[in-house]
Amino acid sequence: MENIHDFRLPAINLIGVGALKDLPLELIPYKLSKALIVTDKNIISLGHVEVVEKILKDLSISYDIFDGILHPDCTISFVEDALTYFKKGLNILKRDYHFIISIGGGTNHDCAKGIAIVATNGGDIEDYEGYKKLKKPSLPVIAINTTSGSGSEVSDSTIVRDNSRRVKMVITDPKMMPIISVNDLRFMTTMPPKITANSGIDVLTHSIEGFVAIEASPITDTLAINALKLVFEYLRRAYKNGNDMEAREKMMFAGVMGGMILNNAGLGYVHSMSHQIGALYEEMHGACNAALLPHVLEFNSISIPEERILKISETMGVKATNKQDAINKIKNGIQNLAEDIGLPTHLSSIGIDKDDLELLSKNAEKDICSSTNPRRGTFVDIMNIFKAAM
Amino acid sequence: MENIHDFRLPAINLIGVGALKDLPLELIPYKLSKALIVTDKNIISLGHVEVVEKILKDLSISYDIFDGILHPDCTISFVEDALTYFKKGLNILKRDYHFIISIGGGTNHDCAKGIAIVATNGGDIEDYEGYKKLKKPSLPVIAINTTSGSGSEVSDSTIVRDNSRRVKMVITDPKMMPIISVNDLRFMTTMPPKITANSGIDVLTHSIEGFVAIEASPITDTLAINALKLVFEYLRRAYKNGNDMEAREKMMFAGVMGGMILNNAGLGYVHSMSHQIGALYEEMHGACNAALLPHVLEFNSISIPEERILKISETMGVKATNKQDAINKIKNGIQNLAEDIGLPTHLSSIGIDKDDLELLSKNAEKDICSSTNPRRGTFVDIMNIFKAAM
Repeated sequence: MENIHDFRLPAINLIGVGALKDLPLELIPYKLSKALIVTDKNIISLGHVEVVEKILKDLSISYDIFDGILHPDCTISFVEDALTYFKKGLNILKRDYHFIISIGGGTNHDCAKGIAIVATNGGDIEDYEGYKKLKKPSLPVIAINTTSGSGSEVSDSTIVRDNSRRVKMVITDPKMMPIISVNDLRFMTTMPPKITANSGIDVLTHSIEGFVAIEASPITDTLAINALKLVFEYLRRAYKNGNDMEAREKMMFAGVMGGMILNNAGLGYVHSMSHQIGALYEEMHGACNAALLPHVLEFNSISIPEERILKISETMGVKATNKQDAINKIKNGIQNLAEDIGLPTHLSSIGIDKDDLELLSKNAEKDICSSTNPRRGTFVDIMNIFKAAM
Repeated sequence: MENIHDFRLPAINLIGVGALKDLPLELIPYKLSKALIVTDKNIISLGHVEVVEKILKDLSISYDIFDGILHPDCTISFVEDALTYFKKGLNILKRDYHFIISIGGGTNHDCAKGIAIVATNGGDIEDYEGYKKLKKPSLPVIAINTTSGSGSEVSDSTIVRDNSRRVKMVITDPKMMPIISVNDLRFMTTMPPKITANSGIDVLTHSIEGFVAIEASPITDTLAINALKLVFEYLRRAYKNGNDMEAREKMMFAGVMGGMILNNAGLGYVHSMSHQIGALYEEMHGACNAALLPHVLEFNSISIPEERILKISETMGVKATNKQDAINKIKNGIQNLAEDIGLPTHLSSIGIDKDDLELLSKNAEKDICSSTNPRRGTFVDIMNIFKAAM
């Protein structure tokens, strides 16, 4: 009987206070001479791009900057805008970019991966929706992270919003795995509380969904339990005081672990459903997760072994007498945490319209994250979860 | 203040029952056409090489087999023998190997990495002793593992015995990280009890040394605690019944985690000292670790926070009232486990000569693993640990 649990990660992950300083040494062997930086104006104004530019100048690597990422959530238009810029570079200015450096959070890494895919595979980004649709490796991507949550810097997925179809596409293929990820605390301290809260809850969701996902392995299990523990110990602190370096550092490590989990265990309905809300409402991903997670967990519980549920509650520091008791206490714990960091605990407070639930449920059912959810649900099941979370 | 904890791993790690079947898909994008297989006659007779040959034939990748690894522990002569073979290929037969596939345990992977280094960097393998001495990336290595312990398949170190100097050299450089590791349970079931015991104790040592090493991070910590737990839960079972697939599988995952730990947290004096015994006595690495670990832990304890010591004892399922109590119980626990799986608990039973302790201690002090030991010791300290372990 086959039972495979591959573990994929960028080969090089620079992590810690001052970790960026090792980037030049890592870049040298690749002999790259021209980069496209993918970022946004906010990240530039925070001075983060300048630091990377200096590194490239010192290595005599020429570069251009695409700063056309205009809001959270990568959209097809951002990828297309960059590709226009990129193609112009290739065709008219004869620029030959060897690699892409994304600087920012998950949105920017997702855009960079989208650009990197089409740059080598051609066609449109929509052509690659789904699992392993790439023919060629993407352009090499180096992901320099400025938030602690999406895990995109260490994952081989990209999530791109298609406004015309009102869905978020998930594109997953090992051929787009970044070659180097950077998580340097110097970039994390500028996260405003709202981003800290949203990205932190994303880590929480990666931990719990990954721990009960059908691709979970002993390696992802241990990462999931520890990331969960770190979130409950440090997220409130990082939210309340952005200069609490210990809390920021622990959340940074939790974020990286969350990325390893989602990439190797898979996720579940919380992400499937949350992706689709993001497609229609431009609502922060973390906020949607916070409202959905308790209800997805309740739905899934029948398919999750009792010991796993009890392990989650125990890790959250909650004593539970049996499975249902644990589920109730986990739900409360998540909701309390969300409230403490200023996130809505009901979809109605996010402004979700009941009339959209059918479309949302249909798209969520098809989302790639549904394939690793521990319990197979119908379209109606998913709609009922949405309703419970309203 | 800088505080960097980079995390490095092969980007692709195929793990599980039947994991090898994904290798062809992973190989295709590299467009490699000629391989050198590095292995030994025992692995060939077990049929493991034939399985890999079939994959290469199906992909029209030509290959040669070097089976000149004659005993556990890679020696300079093995690397040189392979290089003679290899150079002949390059110069006379105009063979152009694109990559190396090692099939076996740590010894075979270490040899393959040694060959891969010199193939691209030239010179002699001794030129690269130490940390980051490579000028060029090594030839790509794909490490197919048949034991659960060394972690070499996921690490960027190689350990090569230099008989002329009577030392084991450690060569560490990210430029030799395997590009793909394979841990398929089909290859593990042929491990005889002695190898199961030795490699299992190696995993135990990677967990404990890595958990208290000075480069430990929240990521390696969580892997270390879980690997330790798996060893105490499953090693006795895997030793007693080699067909206990659950125990074998759990030890396989523990072994991979052990590799991630040693590569990213570093190790300590147990490995420094054990390497040197291996250089003089050709004794199994695991057996040396089993005898040394309790005494190194005793020596290090003053430099290890109480909570870490208590976490180790708790993970081993032992209740302790304070730090010293925990140290005593951890030592007993390790010695009991070693006895149960037929390993010596004293160096004297291995046949170590007291007259060699000075040389062993001098070489151990210089071993690269000493740099991450939590307590800085003198040559005399190391000799005293050797004496205590006799």
